[in-house]
This record gives sequence, structure tokens and C-alpha cells, in this order.
Amino acid sequence: MTDIKITDEIKLRVEQVRRRMLELGAQALLVADASNIYYLSERVFRGFVYLDLVNDPVYCIIRPNNLHGDAVEFIRKPELIPEVLQKRGINLPDSVALELDDLPYSEVLRLSAVFHTDAPQNASVILREARMVKTPKEIETMKADGVRQAAAYSRIPHIYKEDMTDIEFQIEIERVLRLEGCLGYYRTSGRLMEINMGSVLNGENADAPTPYDFAVGGGGADLSLPVGADGRTMKPGTTVMVDMCGNFNGYQTDMTRVWSIGSVPDLALKAHDASRKILRVLEKEARPGVATSALYEMAMDVVRESGLEKYFMGHTQHAAFVGHGVGIQLNELPVITPRSKHLLEQNMTIALEPKFVIPHVGAVGVENTYLVTPDGLRSLTEFPEEIQDLAQ
Amino acid sequence: MTDIKITDEIKLRVEQVRRRMLELGAQALLVADASNIYYLSERVFRGFVYLDLVNDPVYCIIRPNNLHGDAVEFIRKPELIPEVLQKRGINLPDSVALELDDLPYSEVLRLSAVFHTDAPQNASVILREARMVKTPKEIETMKADGVRQAAAYSRIPHIYKEDMTDIEFQIEIERVLRLEGCLGYYRTSGRLMEINMGSVLNGENADAPTPYDFAVGGGGADLSLPVGADGRTMKPGTTVMVDMCGNFNGYQTDMTRVWSIGSVPDLALKAHDASRKILRVLEKEARPGVATSALYEMAMDVVRESGLEKYFMGHTQHAAFVGHGVGIQLNELPVITPRSKHLLEQNMTIALEPKFVIPHVGAVGVENTYLVTPDGLRSLTEFPEEIQDLAQ
Repeated sequence: MTDIKITDEIKLRVEQVRRRMLELGAQALLVADASNIYYLSERVFRGFVYLDLVNDPVYCIIRPNNLHGDAVEFIRKPELIPEVLQKRGINLPDSVALELDDLPYSEVLRLSAVFHTDAPQNASVILREARMVKTPKEIETMKADGVRQAAAYSRIPHIYKEDMTDIEFQIEIERVLRLEGCLGYYRTSGRLMEINMGSVLNGENADAPTPYDFAVGGGGADLSLPVGADGRTMKPGTTVMVDMCGNFNGYQTDMTRVWSIGSVPDLALKAHDASRKILRVLEKEARPGVATSALYEMAMDVVRESGLEKYFMGHTQHAAFVGHGVGIQLNELPVITPRSKHLLEQNMTIALEPKFVIPHVGAVGVENTYLVTPDGLRSLTEFPEEIQDLAQ
Repeated sequence: MTDIKITDEIKLRVEQVRRRMLELGAQALLVADASNIYYLSERVFRGFVYLDLVNDPVYCIIRPNNLHGDAVEFIRKPELIPEVLQKRGINLPDSVALELDDLPYSEVLRLSAVFHTDAPQNASVILREARMVKTPKEIETMKADGVRQAAAYSRIPHIYKEDMTDIEFQIEIERVLRLEGCLGYYRTSGRLMEINMGSVLNGENADAPTPYDFAVGGGGADLSLPVGADGRTMKPGTTVMVDMCGNFNGYQTDMTRVWSIGSVPDLALKAHDASRKILRVLEKEARPGVATSALYEMAMDVVRESGLEKYFMGHTQHAAFVGHGVGIQLNELPVITPRSKHLLEQNMTIALEPKFVIPHVGAVGVENTYLVTPDGLRSLTEFPEEIQDLAQ
């Protein structure tokens, strides 16, 4: 039996959500997505979190059967939720907001009917925006995560062997991450991030376009999963970019480093330096109140000064972004693109990943996860950024 | 550049889908889910397959930009689909069926608007049912998959070391699977199967209930992902159940085997034998035309004869099913439960997984993936079924 309680931490998160419910004019939310249930309960269950503007959240649980506490009601199906709420003396709302961007259409229709809601308001945006700004506990969790991810990355140089394929290299990285405590699986928003534990890109494969929402692609090992390592032998004169899973505790850090096999052309080194320069500029300029779209423009200024536009964020296929929020999900808000509308806020956590793809060489660049502070960005993924030679 | 063609294989699949479109009275489908796109194109892209009753499918692709062929139209957004269809001389349908069980509510609204569809018909069921019955090529693909999964499993006894934790054991299994060519990631239907590469359950942890749609649970290593191995040391007198990822080529086989650490009580051995007896009965009785609900009842007859009801498919939390379809997704149709409505058809592929959880010992039972033939089931996951002692 496991206890589940409305802790002060949960109350803090509930306040984040309620503030946005008021802005939207939502009386109540019915939350079903695993990431959002985890945010609002620090547990994962099959079922629903019912949240209105006055009462403590109610955890309506279908499975598992071993979560207990005052806030818990076991239900067999969502149609029973109004009954359990009424038994608690909770006034039923006129309508509920639902996670319209996360739940399948059929499920939204079913849940809407439970509360006689004709045109449900969208809870997805409220919850994504609430999750943008982290609580002190969430920040500590992510800091711990970054330390473990960096510890696993420090073992990467010992993994490389001559004539290894990129997939063999990735498999050994997966293993050291998992032995360090990485959970392997990680949550994402949307349907467009199919991958196993992240991406290892060597040489020309970094230039293979992908269907997915990743900064750079890779052709993948099989047509059924066209992303990431493709089985090539890692040859001298190429780079290998490692952007692997940083989920050790339910929160994620996102971190990319690049190694070389032998020496690589100056153009690759120049682009790698430009990536680091972008990070140094943004670390200083990114403060509460700054527009995320402005961050993208600052990055582009450095790219243009360096004359590297055609390699930035891909070569045969480009991605017009330079970073994204990170936390329970890998791809949280804000998204840092030319069209983003969000302003930075204190205690947001964002990953910045200015990357370049150099034809015949590979991908270069650095990605760190940062905490937004009044004095600029503070890295949660401290690890040497230089390109080191694996073959030496 | 990669070619994408309307091959004879694709035409075969299209016919499976069209037969069901006619039954439903659907003029056209607009398909967006990755599993279904892969089924209808043998590729994965961000975009849509447009399929009506007369024309070859049209692949409307947003990303990647390197797929080419007569059936391909590049689009920036779904609103441009009617225009590209009209340019091809295709008459626009009065409405399109959409994947209502797979796509988020917001996306369905957007796609409905593109075709002025007020109440879209549900393409999810059509596509799931079409995918139930495999083509000869799909069957060959799954056979190859089963051989590779069995090859990886054959290395499991060499992995075990005294005082290993279940997670350490799982990590090394993940590694041998990956080195054998396993893609790691696998597609599922629905929102309720979060896990990394499958499940390793040792001892009492097999009895920990999970929120997810897996036959048996496990507490997991972290509250954020409450499923599977929990970090315990594998002790003498327990079993370890291995139910790990069998996706080597876009199609999956699902296969479970059990090992022991030292000797285990007779009750566990008896339950394991009952599982194998269930499989032998079903292998003989499961033929085209047999109701999947009848398969469940046949399994329950063996369970009851053995007096093992309280351990069947979980102990503190039970799952009322004994198997499921498998293919591009891990959990395809038919589902083999007391309430299933499907009849078996030739060339369905189903996983049968009669499992028992024995308190203080662990989980026992066998899972195989089978092809439905006129003479009964043919196993695609041939591998010894006996419980062998890892500590010997």
C-alpha cells in the first residue's frame, strides 16, 4: 500500500494551475494524461485528477489498487466520477476543461458526456503553461538529474573502440546511462517523437532528414523507425553527437555533447565554437521578461556573423528553433522559435541546443539544460563542452 | 532520396482497409497515426495517407523531405490536402473518416475542418481490424523477428551473476537484444503502456500492481514510472520473468520466459505447467472461426481444473485476459478476453500469455506469439519453455 497525499508541494502546483484556470474561465479540470497526473499527484495512475477552484484535488483511480489516502476515490469508469464528487459534497461544475491536445477524440467525447459538456475548454495549454515554471522541489529534482546524466556521459570516452558501429556505440551508452539509474523511457508531448533512449549521430548520417520533431535527424537502423544511428562504422574525420535520455527521476535534463574520431576539418570546429558562443550569449541575456523569440534572434545573429546559416539546425532539412522547455516531458513550453509568444520567467527550465550539420563530417554543437534566474541562465548539465578525440 | 511506391504489398493492405470502409460506409480515410502510416506505406513520415475507394493512396508528406515517388505530395500543412487531391483529378469526398481513437481531439477538429466534416467516422477501428490479418510478407517479417528474439533470449542464462539486481539483469538483457538488432522502441495502441523495452519481474515484485495495461505489473524503480523491475537483489527461491521487446524490423513478436534462482516451491512449478498446458490446448483448438472469448474460457477451464484461480493473471490485482493480437503494435486486435467479439481468422498473429503470480516466489508462465492456421496455432517464438535454474 502506498500513501498519496495533498502535500504542500502539490498545493503549490495546484495554485499554478488555478491561476491559469481563472484566466481561461475554467471552473474545473478533469486530467487524464500521465504527465499531468504525475504533476498533480507525484504518482502515476490510470484514472483522473479532478480539480476545481476551491476543493483539494480528487484522485479518481481505476488502477493500481494499492494507492490510498483521503484524496483517493476508486472508480471502475469515468462515468462514476460525478457520484463520488457529490458524495464528497463537491458541487458539480457546469462544464469541465479537458486535455484536448493530449487525449484522443473518442476519449474527450466520453469524458465530456460525463459532465454534460458540449464544447470542452482546453486544459492542455493551461497544464503545459503551469508546468513551465518549476517549483523549488522540481528544480532540485532536475539538478540531481543533471548530475547523474553528466556522470554517465563522463564514461562515454571509455566506451569507444576502433571500427565500432554507431549503434554498438549507442548500445553501450544506453547501458552506462541505465546503470547510472536512467529510467530509459521518457515522456514527450505529442505524437512525433518515436525513438529509443535518444540519439547518437555519426558522420554523414547526421544529415539524413527525419519525420520527427527532433533538432537533427539520422536515418535510423530500419525503415520502420527512421531516426538516429543507422549502423555505420565510425570512421576517422567524423564527429559523433550524443543526445541521450536524461530521465533519472521522472524529470529530465537534456544534454548533447560531441566527440570526434581523429581530427575533423576546421569548418566543424568553427561551427562548434559558434554553438558555444551562442550559449554564452544566451546564458547572459536570457532573464525573466525576455521574449523567447528574442533568444532565437540572438542565436541567429551569432550564426549569421559566423556565416554558418546553411549548416544551422540541419543542412538538407532545417529546424527553425534553438531550444525548448524541459521537465516531466522532454519537449515542454516555452519553445524557442522565431514565432514564440512566451516571455521567460524565473524558474523556467529550458534546453538550448544550437547545432550545426557539416556535410561529410557530422553534427556539432552543445546542448545544456538551464534554470532561468534573475541573473541569467544557470546550467544544470555541467560537463566539458570541447570536442575531444575518442581515437586518441 | 528514398523511393516510395504503391507496391503489390501496399495494394493488398489497401484492399483489407477498403473492404472495411465499404462495411462502414466511409468514402475516404485521412490517416495520420505512425503505425497506420507505416502499414499503408511501409514508411514513416509526418503527414497523412489519403485513401478513398477508387484511387491509389496519396502520401501527403510534411517531413522528411527526401521521400519521393508518384504517390507523394509535399504539403506544409493539412489544409493544403484538398488542393493537391484536386490537382490529381481526385473528386473530394463529402467527409473523411479519421483515427478518432488515436488522434488528439484538437487534431481531429482541425482535420475535420479541412474536409468540412461535421461528425467524422472512426477510422481507428477499420485500421485496427484491417491490421489484424497479416499478409504473407508481414508473416515472413514476424517470423524473422521471432528468430532474432529467441536468439537474444538464448543468451539470458549467461547474463546472470549472483547478487545481481533485477535492474542490472534487465540492463544486460536490453544490451543483448539491442546487439541482436532489436530497435528498442516499440509502438503500442493507446496511452497506457509506458515502459522501457519491456519487463523483468523478480520475486515478490511481480505482485506489485501497476497502472498500466500489462498482464502483470511490478513496482518499478521510481514513482514516476511504476512498472517492472524495482532494483531488488535476485534471491534464491524466486523466479524471474522476462517479457522484453521483440521489435527488430517494425513488426513485433511478444515472448515471455521464466528462469529461477535456485529451486522454487512446487506451487510455482505447478502453475508454470498449467500455463504450458493452456498453451497446448489453445494451440490445438484455436482455428479460424473460433471465438476469441471461447479461447479465454478454455484457458480458464485449465486454470480452474488446476485450482489456481487466485494466482492467474496477477494476485493482488488481476487482468481478465489471456492474450492479444501483435504486429506493428504490441497490443493489436483481437484482444482475448471473456467479452471479446472477434472470431479468429487465418493469418492473424496473436500472443498468448497465461501467467500466474505466486506470492513470495514470483511470476511464472510462458508467452508465445502464434500464427493462426487452418490446423491450429503455429509458434513464431520457438524457445525452450521449461524453468531453468540460473544459479546452476
